[in-house]
Amino acid sequence: MNAPLPARLLPQAASRPVPAALIEALKARFGERCSTAQAVREQHGRDESPFEVRPPDAVVFAESAEEVAAAVALAAAHEVPVIPFGVGSSLEGHLLAVQGGISIDLGRMNRIVALQPEDLTVTVQPGITRSQLNTEIRHTGLFFPIDPGADASIGGMAATRASGTNAVRYGTMRENVLGLQVVTASGEVIRTGTRARKSSAGYDLTRLFVGSEGTLGVMTEITLRLYPLPEAISAAICSFPSIDAAVQTTIQTIQLGVPIARCELLDAHAVRAVNRHDGLSLREGPMLLMEFHGSPAGVKEQAETVQEIAREFGGEDFQWATTPEERTRLWTARHHAYFAALQSRPGCRAVTTDACVPISHLGACLDETVAEADAAGLPYFIVGHVGDGNFHVGYLIDPADLRERELAERLSHQVVARALRFEGTCTGEHGIGLHKMDFLVEEAGEGGVALMRAIKQTLDPRNIMNPGKIFAL
Amino acid sequence: MNAPLPARLLPQAASRPVPAALIEALKARFGERCSTAQAVREQHGRDESPFEVRPPDAVVFAESAEEVAAAVALAAAHEVPVIPFGVGSSLEGHLLAVQGGISIDLGRMNRIVALQPEDLTVTVQPGITRSQLNTEIRHTGLFFPIDPGADASIGGMAATRASGTNAVRYGTMRENVLGLQVVTASGEVIRTGTRARKSSAGYDLTRLFVGSEGTLGVMTEITLRLYPLPEAISAAICSFPSIDAAVQTTIQTIQLGVPIARCELLDAHAVRAVNRHDGLSLREGPMLLMEFHGSPAGVKEQAETVQEIAREFGGEDFQWATTPEERTRLWTARHHAYFAALQSRPGCRAVTTDACVPISHLGACLDETVAEADAAGLPYFIVGHVGDGNFHVGYLIDPADLRERELAERLSHQVVARALRFEGTCTGEHGIGLHKMDFLVEEAGEGGVALMRAIKQTLDPRNIMNPGKIFAL
Repeated sequence: MNAPLPARLLPQAASRPVPAALIEALKARFGERCSTAQAVREQHGRDESPFEVRPPDAVVFAESAEEVAAAVALAAAHEVPVIPFGVGSSLEGHLLAVQGGISIDLGRMNRIVALQPEDLTVTVQPGITRSQLNTEIRHTGLFFPIDPGADASIGGMAATRASGTNAVRYGTMRENVLGLQVVTASGEVIRTGTRARKSSAGYDLTRLFVGSEGTLGVMTEITLRLYPLPEAISAAICSFPSIDAAVQTTIQTIQLGVPIARCELLDAHAVRAVNRHDGLSLREGPMLLMEFHGSPAGVKEQAETVQEIAREFGGEDFQWATTPEERTRLWTARHHAYFAALQSRPGCRAVTTDACVPISHLGACLDETVAEADAAGLPYFIVGHVGDGNFHVGYLIDPADLRERELAERLSHQVVARALRFEGTCTGEHGIGLHKMDFLVEEAGEGGVALMRAIKQTLDPRNIMNPGKIFAL
Repeated sequence: MNAPLPARLLPQAASRPVPAALIEALKARFGERCSTAQAVREQHGRDESPFEVRPPDAVVFAESAEEVAAAVALAAAHEVPVIPFGVGSSLEGHLLAVQGGISIDLGRMNRIVALQPEDLTVTVQPGITRSQLNTEIRHTGLFFPIDPGADASIGGMAATRASGTNAVRYGTMRENVLGLQVVTASGEVIRTGTRARKSSAGYDLTRLFVGSEGTLGVMTEITLRLYPLPEAISAAICSFPSIDAAVQTTIQTIQLGVPIARCELLDAHAVRAVNRHDGLSLREGPMLLMEFHGSPAGVKEQAETVQEIAREFGGEDFQWATTPEERTRLWTARHHAYFAALQSRPGCRAVTTDACVPISHLGACLDETVAEADAAGLPYFIVGHVGDGNFHVGYLIDPADLRERELAERLSHQVVARALRFEGTCTGEHGIGLHKMDFLVEEAGEGGVALMRAIKQTLDPRNIMNPGKIFAL
């Protein structure tokens, strides 16, 4: 376990007192499923972000929407914060109990509620993970494509508006959540959306909750779009003489309308880390890792088009992953990139950026970012969902070294400033959480954030739903 | 001009007094671009819905966001309603000044603000129509696919979360608006979203405004996703022995993951009306009108797959529209279906439904709807974006005949009740407007509507933004 970043990097927020009467009431209602054990609390007060643990005062393991509603109603009566917990894979400190309160662990609510293969829809509880979901629906010939690196819970993915490697073709959680059951801040259970593919029925409450990071309510059911497993899938890697060449290949591919399913950039540092971690022997230069979905003929056609484009930009010949096993090996390596990079510097922590820009600016944005990182001298790696214009720089710092911490924070801020200058966003898929609140103001403006805050205050007048995230409140 | 439905079908709402001081202030600011002429007011107090004209007290022809902000600020100071006006093609009474007030005509704000072909994005003013937009960007090789029947304004389409014939492949306004510039109820100008393809930066204000029907603010700029014009396009019609056979063909097509671009159902009544109106000689039975986009080989492959499915369900051989002229002729006929049907019964008005259900329920939902309409004896027609599970029944009524009016309203309500029973929505693409407010409560529940109302009251505390639409307030 690497040392966490000290609390001073967190926005200051006072813990609110949690009355003994609330803990007693929760224990009366939930029995042993309400825990105040130190180990359980600490496990629920951390995530994959570099911040120090901020444990909640108690953890409730809920098993139904009614139980979530009961826990929220009790917390509301005592004006105590409530933090929904899935698997803890957030990168932005979403799960830290910065104002104290009750963590509601949704891990036991991990069932498929209803599966309608004929409609390409499924309704799940929030605690199911994406890989569990895909395993359980495999017999239908369908899959749920949204694929962040971690095996996140669907609830957490909806709450952060997650995306990942397949988004360039299938969209993000924004496009793939059809409806929700939500426990509101008053403990009421409401539904948003229907199973219809589209609707013009009033305000889009579904998309208001998607990406709200637990600050407006607790999702207790999520209805998702599914997709037919492609008849043919083929994956290829291609090395390039420069990051820019890889990016230009991506841009032309998108502009030509090639329905590429995945288009991932790894810089030389990321490839090197992955080689060591997964025992691969990939060429240690900038690389695109691509996947094509469709009919056998369609996949062949797509691949030929992209190969032709890649050649123009000095790309080497494609190396194909032809069997499912080879494909899995490559994608597993890609998903390990973050942890592989962490292991490349023992004891380090990663300060990770999540900029997303219009693709025509991606080359310039990456060029400036690389030059700056090289000049700064901190170890770093870059991976990117470049088909969407989204990339992550991970600055690998020694958390005990104040200078490195501050340097990484400064570099991270500069990446955001650059992304905004290039008409992009400070976060493509991780969310604001604790760490990007100032960036949100830069991006959305005071007026936009004031509007978000007004909505928060209306839907959660006691400020109990995951307070202190997205904006200070 | 057919006689409108009398006001008694409208929810009752009191007009608010518009002080002479406000009109004077608007005339001082806008000169001749503020009109109180009867003809101008009446033109802005109607739309394509069957309701009687409810003219605003004045019409302001705005030419910039600053002017919209100035008009809204003046109206806000006098607590007078503001109704944004595009081209008036709403089917749900969105433009009627049911509580009086000022219509802001955005028709002169019809420019492209910025076009970035390399990013597949464009930013437009709200008054540009979809066909004007597509004409102006044709040289880029890109197009904007969202295509309701009418040549609506992009602002109106965003405000109603419109979709149309291409949505099965390209999504709706929900998926295709990246960002907005909005004048809020206080006359402040804010921006939502960026040009990045995805973002997790705070609440999704863009999608809160999209579909809010002018009740939360006035959109003054809209950033849209564009798509490469397909290399190959081919359109075909296919007649079926029954509506059910056409629907089953559609369902199998979707379930197989065929990326069909358009899949439109016309019932025998609609085909007959179109034949007369456009001088065509289509077989007067249930018909699918389809379009395939892709590479030449991809289009051929899609078409072969669908043709095979159609044959299984008794579909006749495809008739191809091979030239662009033939294709345009077919799609123009489809877009004329509504007006063609109106002309099939001189003097009539159409009461139109907009149900959208999960596709597995579409056959049963249509069967029951047809049986009920046949038994009721009112002339009607059905057209549907069946790939999305969305269909419109138009009941053609004599507006002077109280019995017919009430019958059509009852049938319409029963279609909604059926759609909700089948886990669908009362409106796939037209919006709630005046006419579906009760249906929204049935669909979203009191809790969901209360939440929408709370958001409205927070963002528009004086209730001046298009009041009396979506919910009574």
